Amino acid sequence: MKIAVLPGDGIGPEIVAQAVRVLHALGPKFDLEEAPVGGAAYDVAGHPLPPATLELAKKADAILFGAVGDWKYDTLARELRPEQAILGLRKHLELFANFRPAICYPELTAASSLKPEIIGGLDILIVRELNGDIYFGQPRGIRTSELPLFKGAREGYDTMHYSEPEVERIGRVAFEAARKRGKKVCSVDKANVLETSQLWREVMIRISKEYPDVELSHMYVDNAAMQLVKAPKAFDVVVTGNLFGDILSDEAAMLTGSIGMLPSASLDKNNKGLYEPSHGSAPDIAGKGIANPLATILSAAMMLRYSLGMPAEADRIEKAVQKVLAQGLRTADIYTEGTQKVTTVQMGDAVVAAL
Amino acid sequence: MKIAVLPGDGIGPEIVAQAVRVLHALGPKFDLEEAPVGGAAYDVAGHPLPPATLELAKKADAILFGAVGDWKYDTLARELRPEQAILGLRKHLELFANFRPAICYPELTAASSLKPEIIGGLDILIVRELNGDIYFGQPRGIRTSELPLFKGAREGYDTMHYSEPEVERIGRVAFEAARKRGKKVCSVDKANVLETSQLWREVMIRISKEYPDVELSHMYVDNAAMQLVKAPKAFDVVVTGNLFGDILSDEAAMLTGSIGMLPSASLDKNNKGLYEPSHGSAPDIAGKGIANPLATILSAAMMLRYSLGMPAEADRIEKAVQKVLAQGLRTADIYTEGTQKVTTVQMGDAVVAAL
Ligand SMILES: CC(C)[C@H](C(=O)O)[C@@H](O)C(=O)O
Ligand SMILES: CC(C)[C@H](C(=O)O)[C@@H](O)C(=O)O
Repeated sequence: MKIAVLPGDGIGPEIVAQAVRVLHALGPKFDLEEAPVGGAAYDVAGHPLPPATLELAKKADAILFGAVGDWKYDTLARELRPEQAILGLRKHLELFANFRPAICYPELTAASSLKPEIIGGLDILIVRELNGDIYFGQPRGIRTSELPLFKGAREGYDTMHYSEPEVERIGRVAFEAARKRGKKVCSVDKANVLETSQLWREVMIRISKEYPDVELSHMYVDNAAMQLVKAPKAFDVVVTGNLFGDILSDEAAMLTGSIGMLPSASLDKNNKGLYEPSHGSAPDIAGKGIANPLATILSAAMMLRYSLGMPAEADRIEKAVQKVLAQGLRTADIYTEGTQKVTTVQMGDAVVAAL
Repeated sequence: MKIAVLPGDGIGPEIVAQAVRVLHALGPKFDLEEAPVGGAAYDVAGHPLPPATLELAKKADAILFGAVGDWKYDTLARELRPEQAILGLRKHLELFANFRPAICYPELTAASSLKPEIIGGLDILIVRELNGDIYFGQPRGIRTSELPLFKGAREGYDTMHYSEPEVERIGRVAFEAARKRGKKVCSVDKANVLETSQLWREVMIRISKEYPDVELSHMYVDNAAMQLVKAPKAFDVVVTGNLFGDILSDEAAMLTGSIGMLPSASLDKNNKGLYEPSHGSAPDIAGKGIANPLATILSAAMMLRYSLGMPAEADRIEKAVQKVLAQGLRTADIYTEGTQKVTTVQMGDAVVAAL
């Protein structure tokens, strides 16, 4: 099993190092190969996703990804910025299905800005399409406006689009996931305004017929943003496009108050995947040894389950994480009075010990 | 002063009736003229925004709008659905500047799903652009995909765009508003992915030079969706495009837990405006006499302040609303133990009495 390890920028290297320790501690021998990505890759190779890194990602069975981005790259042209690496990997590897669980661990309920009765026990899954939508749509650019009112002015423009097969494949992923969970899919769109959403909704309704055991509902994206705040536990699986998924998955993650705990997976049609924490590179705390490695460690567990066919090992990691939480160990981001504050490495130590 | 009164569907007529009573109780003589809109207009005239209603809206000095939409119109073609009325009014009247305050009244802090220390005292203003973006962008429709992977498949598509003058005018509205408040503008975009956002950000930076007393910051929309949950009080004025504004203004409104209290204004360049509650038509409770009329009454106050040049009368209404809250009167949506539950009409009575 070949795993590409791409630590990236900011806290990326620190948290990935702990996930790698956990993988080694499991027993089976993994073939891990590391490569630079994001700003770190720009520094050494002049591009956030150098050909060698992309090649490694292509030939690996799975990718363990840290995080990318740092203020010092803010002045670069957009195609050289760190986040282009993650967009490039998603596109080149056809990683179209993004799984973003939003889980509120019982021990961490107090970390949320929401009341415990609203958030306690939350366990929802956002399934976000990653290869289409306005992210990659052509044409796009800066042109001269043709609108009568603004004729001749500079205008920025982008194209949103989804084709039937794209909606079908992400829809099936969501229905399959719901089958193994609460058997409810809520498809989020803006079909009262967008043609793209009209087609999206039509396709979701059509494929839902193949999953009579799963309940399909539809919600406009503005309403979904509200309902997530009001009653997040009413959701089971939420499926949506790339742009709405970007917004709603982050909102859902932050509801828990413990985004430092949340893993994510981005899969292709053969379940090859890229695994990364839901949080970012946090350059403000990079190098201080205080970042929470648990989201990355849990991402490694997702990798074992979805891409490497090792569900027992995935379970072991998840149980170990639950154990360290039960022991009261907390990195600074999830620390509350009465618990024990630990560093990134100490948290890694504890998970390894708990295995 | 001519006011077009468009009650619409669902609870619209009930709540608008109370706002009209409040206007009459103020003393000055307003010339109020009512017309059907939304599903109610479709029923009598075959179109959600009949020519006569649009004409009235055009010649009025301001528009008091209830809400539109009901399940029974769900099977109509999109161009005949109730919500087309609101999109049509915004576009035909060039109501480009949407003001959506998210305020948490001290008496209603407990209604929020957020902890009191996070939400108590919230007072932020979302300024949403209403005439551009992907809402009205051409081309749009269903076509045959040209993407190599999906060639020949049906594809839905839409165009997002903003020209410089469109961004400038909404930017100025936001900076002017911030000057009268906390002197901070946070511009929300997705400039790391969208060309439209790149131009948006560039223009915001340029015009910010004219407002050296106002602090400008930028945030990606996914991060904004998170920060609203985590620390909403860190914001003052948020300015954003039509689509992101749709999502974020609803999220912000729901944070307060009392969306039944929140008014909104949609203004043209001469401060002529349409005023409506931030909540919808709530067909499930229509006709029961239990809807909260306060958002509509407060919308009438905004109308007096922004479009009719009557700030003293606006103040009187707002004080009256504060008084009825202090008296402990609550409609069902904001009711908590120890307060007095009242009907729509009783709430209207109380505000009129408090004037
Ligand atoms: C970095 C950015 C381009 C990316 C996105 O918008 O998809 C990020 O926000 C994410 O959600 O992974
Ligand atoms: C009804 C709908 C078209 C509308 C919008 O998306 O703008 C509504 O959600 C709003 O925010 O006023």
